[in-house]
Amino acid sequence: MAAKQQKKNAFYAQSGGVTAVINASAAGVIETARASKDRIGRVYAGRNGIIGALTEDLIDTTKESAAAIAQLRYTPSGAFGSCRYKLKSLDANRREYERLIEVFKAHDIGYFFYNGGGDSADTCFKVSQLSESMGYPIQAIHVPKTVDNDLPITDCCPGFGSVAKYVAVSTLEASFDVRSMAKTSTKVFVIEVMGRHAGWIAAAGGLVEDHGIPVVVLFPEIEFDEKKFIARVDALVKKNGYCSVVVSEGCHYPDGRFLAEQGTKDAFGHAQLGGAAPIVADMVRRELKLKFHWAVADYLQRAARHIASKTDAKQAYELGAAAVKLALKGRNAVMPTVDRVSDAPYKYRIGVAALSEVANKEKFMPRDFITADGFGITEKCKRYLRPLIQGEDYPKYGKDGMPLYATLKNVAVEKKLPAFELK
Amino acid sequence: MAAKQQKKNAFYAQSGGVTAVINASAAGVIETARASKDRIGRVYAGRNGIIGALTEDLIDTTKESAAAIAQLRYTPSGAFGSCRYKLKSLDANRREYERLIEVFKAHDIGYFFYNGGGDSADTCFKVSQLSESMGYPIQAIHVPKTVDNDLPITDCCPGFGSVAKYVAVSTLEASFDVRSMAKTSTKVFVIEVMGRHAGWIAAAGGLVEDHGIPVVVLFPEIEFDEKKFIARVDALVKKNGYCSVVVSEGCHYPDGRFLAEQGTKDAFGHAQLGGAAPIVADMVRRELKLKFHWAVADYLQRAARHIASKTDAKQAYELGAAAVKLALKGRNAVMPTVDRVSDAPYKYRIGVAALSEVANKEKFMPRDFITADGFGITEKCKRYLRPLIQGEDYPKYGKDGMPLYATLKNVAVEKKLPAFELK
Repeated sequence: MAAKQQKKNAFYAQSGGVTAVINASAAGVIETARASKDRIGRVYAGRNGIIGALTEDLIDTTKESAAAIAQLRYTPSGAFGSCRYKLKSLDANRREYERLIEVFKAHDIGYFFYNGGGDSADTCFKVSQLSESMGYPIQAIHVPKTVDNDLPITDCCPGFGSVAKYVAVSTLEASFDVRSMAKTSTKVFVIEVMGRHAGWIAAAGGLVEDHGIPVVVLFPEIEFDEKKFIARVDALVKKNGYCSVVVSEGCHYPDGRFLAEQGTKDAFGHAQLGGAAPIVADMVRRELKLKFHWAVADYLQRAARHIASKTDAKQAYELGAAAVKLALKGRNAVMPTVDRVSDAPYKYRIGVAALSEVANKEKFMPRDFITADGFGITEKCKRYLRPLIQGEDYPKYGKDGMPLYATLKNVAVEKKLPAFELK
Repeated sequence: MAAKQQKKNAFYAQSGGVTAVINASAAGVIETARASKDRIGRVYAGRNGIIGALTEDLIDTTKESAAAIAQLRYTPSGAFGSCRYKLKSLDANRREYERLIEVFKAHDIGYFFYNGGGDSADTCFKVSQLSESMGYPIQAIHVPKTVDNDLPITDCCPGFGSVAKYVAVSTLEASFDVRSMAKTSTKVFVIEVMGRHAGWIAAAGGLVEDHGIPVVVLFPEIEFDEKKFIARVDALVKKNGYCSVVVSEGCHYPDGRFLAEQGTKDAFGHAQLGGAAPIVADMVRRELKLKFHWAVADYLQRAARHIASKTDAKQAYELGAAAVKLALKGRNAVMPTVDRVSDAPYKYRIGVAALSEVANKEKFMPRDFITADGFGITEKCKRYLRPLIQGEDYPKYGKDGMPLYATLKNVAVEKKLPAFELK
């Protein structure tokens, strides 16, 4: 018989841009670990992601009540703080890895759960190699998270379904508005959405077509052609009296320049920090003389827990829980995934991927998800998207009409090591 | 005994910028009229507001099922189309008034329900004078609607409570996001909101203070002072690590110039159509070297039926219903109002105001609703706002994860008159 596995503490951290449901993954990790007290001691969270590990700024999650952890399922943002900080390679910054091991040793940490996107998968992969490269026994499991939906292997990423629901619902609502106003006023509405180099979020705006809305989607995957774009808007407005435009922040010209980079200067000669939406709206004004409105959803879209997708919130929790179960099975250097079984009815299984296959790879919209003209989504894409925005999962609201979101105590664990300076 | 009042048809139109709940007022008008079949014949809606009356483009609402009208309570935008079109004075454009009377006569219209804001109240008031000035017996009742909340006499305006809820919830969610990111990334989040010359919508963003969020609100009622603003942001970020800024589109310098009017030019020398948010964000970057994000909610905020205030949706319906009841009581040139009785528990009555007192008057934020430093809201203001965003009133969602919003048949009434050209 195998010897009883030694009880170890766990480290959990949130990384990169936060989402409406990353805290649901945190709840999945913490609640599953709490249910496995024979194998996992305390869950320490990094205050502000991996920086918390490097600076020994650990949060003792055992100080949070079961109710507070449960409330995380309904709380957007990163409850422990996140960061944008990518570990260099072992050769380039051995000092940081040695420090991580010191901190793990000092706090008896044997499990490393890292909740993030592509860059974070890379960090998690590097940590997973510490057993081999530096002889410290650690199991590192990545919990996927990104509104951009650009991680490979997994069918979708927690965070995406909720931002997709927000964008689809908001575009539908604003399009109804424009339709009402078009006779004497606004005829074109432009909404800018996130997604970096991937058009998944913009694609969600294309779902309004099923509700009778004429819409043009501008993807990062399709090189922007102003003439074709203007012709498309012109045709839709002539036919319908109005149209909506969903533009991805990553939309760019053939030479790689983003739409937002127009070399514009303010009155003082400073570069103007634009968005893509005002640029696109101004093209419509200039070329078609049509009245327009534009919106930039920015953080509103990824923080909109009030209209989160139930599918997304559920998967975020399940993947957090699955990460702990993988650790308990002795796995290292892996990430739990969503493996789709069928579109309608929507069925999926939780699978597993090797981090070596995940790190530093981006998944873009397949060409057959985009219509031939490059301005819309195909039925195949809609079949992919629809289940991901299914279901509502409302937070509770207080008497003041505001959602009840958790703010944790975030009690610090006593430090045992000398200070460490981030470089 | 008085002779039985003659049965007449009613005209209903939506005017100006639409809202998340103006269709709830339409439902109130139509359902109440349907319940008064002995006195009111058909309700004809103007296609695209008053333009529908002038061009005899009437919609026969009797062709819509009871279910479709009931669904209007949950549908944002203007179901019959709206317009921005202000009738001139009787002296300046007698031709239009004569045309209105022709159309009213041709379709036996005795009731005129006009659903709009300040400009529309003026139009409604002019129509209400037609009995006296031109001898045509009409009763004109204004149904208040404006997200700007700037109509006088009524305690609040349908449309405002829902946009206030959207702005308060969205600012809270985005602020949680910034709080998560502030250690290594974004420290200041700027959201631009509507409201024209009145700061009511921006004030709603100030409610996040009750949830521990450091926030600066920029009102149109307070002349913008860049130095003071930057000092305030600096102090909040130094204390909390981050802050949010809610800027009203109407925010302006002492000389009246809007923040958005910076005289910026694009690469082609065209005036750049900015929003106030990117301008404010750029000040923060320039003066404080802090990383920022900005959002412009634009139509998203006023169309956001998915997070409508229950109080607001209820009042919108009640004021539509009250307008019909006032008409049945023989009233003319009036507008039903919300008269607040108490803040907590929130109690109100439906009252009535003379249109002569309403038309062309704007109600701004009282100075004692704004903190002494000009950057926040007082407890008095919070007491005013809280009940208006209370309660959720979710639409139903379809299997595709999208809200079920009504699109009406909007069947045209057969024309009886020669065409009329709008000038």
